[in-house]
Amino acid sequence: MQPKTRGATSSASTHQVRGSAGKDRAVLEGTVAELGEFGLIDLLTGVLGTAQPSAGGSVLVGPGDDSAVVDFDGARIVISTDAMVEDVHFKRSWSSGEDVGVRAAAANLADIVAMGATPTVLVVALGVPPDLQVEWVLELARGLRHEADRLGVRVVGGDVVQSPVVSLAVTALGALGGDEPVRRSGAQVGDVVAVCGRLGWAAAGLAVLMRGFRSPRAVVDAHRRPAIDYDAVMTARDIATSMCDVSDGLVSDAGHVAHASGVRLALSTDELSPEQALLDVGAALGDDPRSWILTGGDDHAVLATFPPQVSLPPGWRAVGIVEAGAGVTVDGREYALPGGHAHFSA
Amino acid sequence: MQPKTRGATSSASTHQVRGSAGKDRAVLEGTVAELGEFGLIDLLTGVLGTAQPSAGGSVLVGPGDDSAVVDFDGARIVISTDAMVEDVHFKRSWSSGEDVGVRAAAANLADIVAMGATPTVLVVALGVPPDLQVEWVLELARGLRHEADRLGVRVVGGDVVQSPVVSLAVTALGALGGDEPVRRSGAQVGDVVAVCGRLGWAAAGLAVLMRGFRSPRAVVDAHRRPAIDYDAVMTARDIATSMCDVSDGLVSDAGHVAHASGVRLALSTDELSPEQALLDVGAALGDDPRSWILTGGDDHAVLATFPPQVSLPPGWRAVGIVEAGAGVTVDGREYALPGGHAHFSA
Repeated sequence: MQPKTRGATSSASTHQVRGSAGKDRAVLEGTVAELGEFGLIDLLTGVLGTAQPSAGGSVLVGPGDDSAVVDFDGARIVISTDAMVEDVHFKRSWSSGEDVGVRAAAANLADIVAMGATPTVLVVALGVPPDLQVEWVLELARGLRHEADRLGVRVVGGDVVQSPVVSLAVTALGALGGDEPVRRSGAQVGDVVAVCGRLGWAAAGLAVLMRGFRSPRAVVDAHRRPAIDYDAVMTARDIATSMCDVSDGLVSDAGHVAHASGVRLALSTDELSPEQALLDVGAALGDDPRSWILTGGDDHAVLATFPPQVSLPPGWRAVGIVEAGAGVTVDGREYALPGGHAHFSA
Repeated sequence: MQPKTRGATSSASTHQVRGSAGKDRAVLEGTVAELGEFGLIDLLTGVLGTAQPSAGGSVLVGPGDDSAVVDFDGARIVISTDAMVEDVHFKRSWSSGEDVGVRAAAANLADIVAMGATPTVLVVALGVPPDLQVEWVLELARGLRHEADRLGVRVVGGDVVQSPVVSLAVTALGALGGDEPVRRSGAQVGDVVAVCGRLGWAAAGLAVLMRGFRSPRAVVDAHRRPAIDYDAVMTARDIATSMCDVSDGLVSDAGHVAHASGVRLALSTDELSPEQALLDVGAALGDDPRSWILTGGDDHAVLATFPPQVSLPPGWRAVGIVEAGAGVTVDGREYALPGGHAHFSA
């Protein structure tokens, strides 16, 4: 099995299933690959329900945003969980233990800051093959700590179990104090769409590795560990009308914001020119670097919308505008996602 | 690979490693199986550190108890994470999706109530093989919901990823309000040691299944899903001096309480007679049911200590006393754990 960030499963039936959730015998008897990730999540969310807890706290945001938000006695806690599995999300021959630890922590911390919260603690459920070298596991822990230390976040608990492949499920908690979360649903017509962080670099790195190369180092390293500017994201939380971690790819996650907000996000590739490193890799591999920028998720950039009158905070660049309507356009046209709506990845 | 609840790895070097954590090149170059679960956790805890978060909350209880406790603006949140992996913790040919969901939720909810907290929400990271039937995944979700519903707990988020085997990492959050957690470290000399819930039934059920049998149904079902009396555990939280989820086995978890509290737990098998169902299975298989009671963890019973003058709450039975000293005795003698200190399980 090859690591994939998208297209790992067929998307043929995804939209059809969303309209008839839980009723279709053929869907239930089919495989999760046939149904696709988002179709499966829709069905699971239906089974799990949306009622409030009977004691201890109240749910302000449930499934469907970057993170859940629960109010405990006035303290608003943001919760996100993300899993990574060896040979699906990473290969031990391509990434060190430390790389994997950094990436697992970063994926969760990005979800917390994209809700406008301050990340506080992590817990880690770790699956390890019995023959895994102890030093590799300690490197992984060093990677987790390295990324968490950037934000003063602590790992407060975990579980270690036997598993046929290395797997990590990291759960991050953040604090909102009494503030409102920045949700996907707040984009307003006329807002500026902006991005913080690299796009397409991790996808370019993965493309390089999958062809058997190890360089250019900059893009390969971008696959191994994202470089998230947490401070820049956190600076935006008081002025952004919506925010979303780009983990499914820019067009796909812009679609989540558009859907949740009831608007259209009109992206412009004028503002999304590939950097020279991506142009070089694209030329060498015969790939279009623009597709990495529009569909790559593993850089964990953050997408947000801002009122038109505000100046974008440092680290953010405008990539489009919010219009009346629905869906996402790229240079005025709908962008056909190559299976991007149905992958099985973080 | 066979499902195991204990003895999955060698324990030979565990204690030696605890004394020289991180220094021994032979340990680092060895495998996690050679090191053992507890030795690995010791090393990981050392790497991850114990500093306080720099913002958002303060850690009241870190690694080493059933759950972590974090104070967010005066709201004390209890956090526990537990993973279960196909063919390590369960087999799909032995357990339904619903069984696995119930068990995964129960393992975490037991950890929350064993801290004296009120369980509130769960998040679930789910790994699924592409060829897994959709209906099996929905059954699993029904099992999670069924067990969570018993306590009015809600599943508020999750992640679904591709994995070569079914794997679940469930993270549970509970609320303490302003109360103190009931830790492992509060046992006092003279206290009564008591247990709430069945012991040895899940281990007997696993023994039956591993010999290729499917009955007696009562013990096989006990392996498939624990039957936890959450109300009885929660009633004890105001009077217990210490509490601990029995997930490693009674003797092993009593050892954790003894170590954390600086006392000896003296257990008496007079109070731990096997029920008729366990005697029958033991006779049929040629096994000693007492070893299931003393070392089986998957029933998720709860162990606690109570001041001698209080009446035990309903659902609790006395199984020993707290003495000055260290470690655990069974009928006055040390009990040799068959590898119970080094398994890789939940």
